[in-house]
Amino acid sequence: MRLFDFNRAPNPRRVRMFIAEKRLDIPLVPVNLYRHEQLSPEFLAINPAGTLPVLETDEGEYISESLAICSYLEARHPDPPLLGTGASACARVLMWNAICEQDGLAAIAEVLRNVSPGFRDHALPGPLPVAQLPPLVARGQQRAAWFFERIATRLQHHQYLAGDSFSFADLTLLACVDFAAWVQIQPQQAHPPIARWYAEVASRPSARL
Amino acid sequence: MRLFDFNRAPNPRRVRMFIAEKRLDIPLVPVNLYRHEQLSPEFLAINPAGTLPVLETDEGEYISESLAICSYLEARHPDPPLLGTGASACARVLMWNAICEQDGLAAIAEVLRNVSPGFRDHALPGPLPVAQLPPLVARGQQRAAWFFERIATRLQHHQYLAGDSFSFADLTLLACVDFAAWVQIQPQQAHPPIARWYAEVASRPSARL
Repeated sequence: MRLFDFNRAPNPRRVRMFIAEKRLDIPLVPVNLYRHEQLSPEFLAINPAGTLPVLETDEGEYISESLAICSYLEARHPDPPLLGTGASACARVLMWNAICEQDGLAAIAEVLRNVSPGFRDHALPGPLPVAQLPPLVARGQQRAAWFFERIATRLQHHQYLAGDSFSFADLTLLACVDFAAWVQIQPQQAHPPIARWYAEVASRPSARL
Repeated sequence: MRLFDFNRAPNPRRVRMFIAEKRLDIPLVPVNLYRHEQLSPEFLAINPAGTLPVLETDEGEYISESLAICSYLEARHPDPPLLGTGASACARVLMWNAICEQDGLAAIAEVLRNVSPGFRDHALPGPLPVAQLPPLVARGQQRAAWFFERIATRLQHHQYLAGDSFSFADLTLLACVDFAAWVQIQPQQAHPPIARWYAEVASRPSARL
């Protein structure tokens, strides 16, 4: 098994943290997004979407999409469970993970990809050109602000996002919060419940990755 | 258990189809999106995001996000399996489901929500105003075209999206294809592999829902 990875991007990071929480040792294959290596013919043959991370299994299968990779690893290495134990807990992890992906990571990416010169003509991931749209910067900032308000409300009454147990949803949220800092959004400052949660989760050894 | 539902929207539809494939009998609670009932204080107390579907469990818990709901139902009613059996198959279902959600449903929603007068100031789901951005119409059309090209390539060599077995990923794709027709995108016409797949999947009794 090996993981196609880039150490500066939020999605590969949450999968690397998941691997560290499981105490697995999976070799990393760096794909430098800054040099557009994900758009090389070699990598597009592995993942036509040109996104990271991708897991290559021992059977030579390529799995993209962070949740799919983590589900594969959870099935093979159940302890510690990070995708929930039992129907309710598992549903809560998937629910909050989806919210963090759609309303958190996507909103922050909307800001970054439409404002940063490095993403000119790459406002969406993938090999094909997509022009930046300046109005999406303010829209993404507003979406991110609503997202973090909702998260703060949730964390006011729950230790972790999916309830009492640390899970993959917390890894996705940690990747969100640190990604948000790239575009000068720091929800820990406005929201004490997020600050409380962040202090705990960011101090885990996996968060150093 | 009951499902908060609207019979014209693609996400509630794929969960209704999932329930039908499982031969479950779960009462539906209609929430009329055309009348903005999802933005009522009563519904926002159930799901602050103002999205459908939402499952209310027998324990009174509310689960939003289609995949989370289907994972809950799969854990309680494993047969027939629709989220994959075994680590690899399960990962493939989640991978293709994520691709259909992010690159398919989201792209088509981008077109519809930015072009239709019914979505004025509601270009994104949820209670807060989001203005329409006309350039997102063409962008969404382009994204949808790329998405269906990738799907056609996949279906050229596989009976179903995740491989040999019909799965939740096919339900998400069916919801995508029928949703695309709302904005005059009909991938069955340009892509024979999609036409072959569609003829089979759309003839299942669950597809009538």
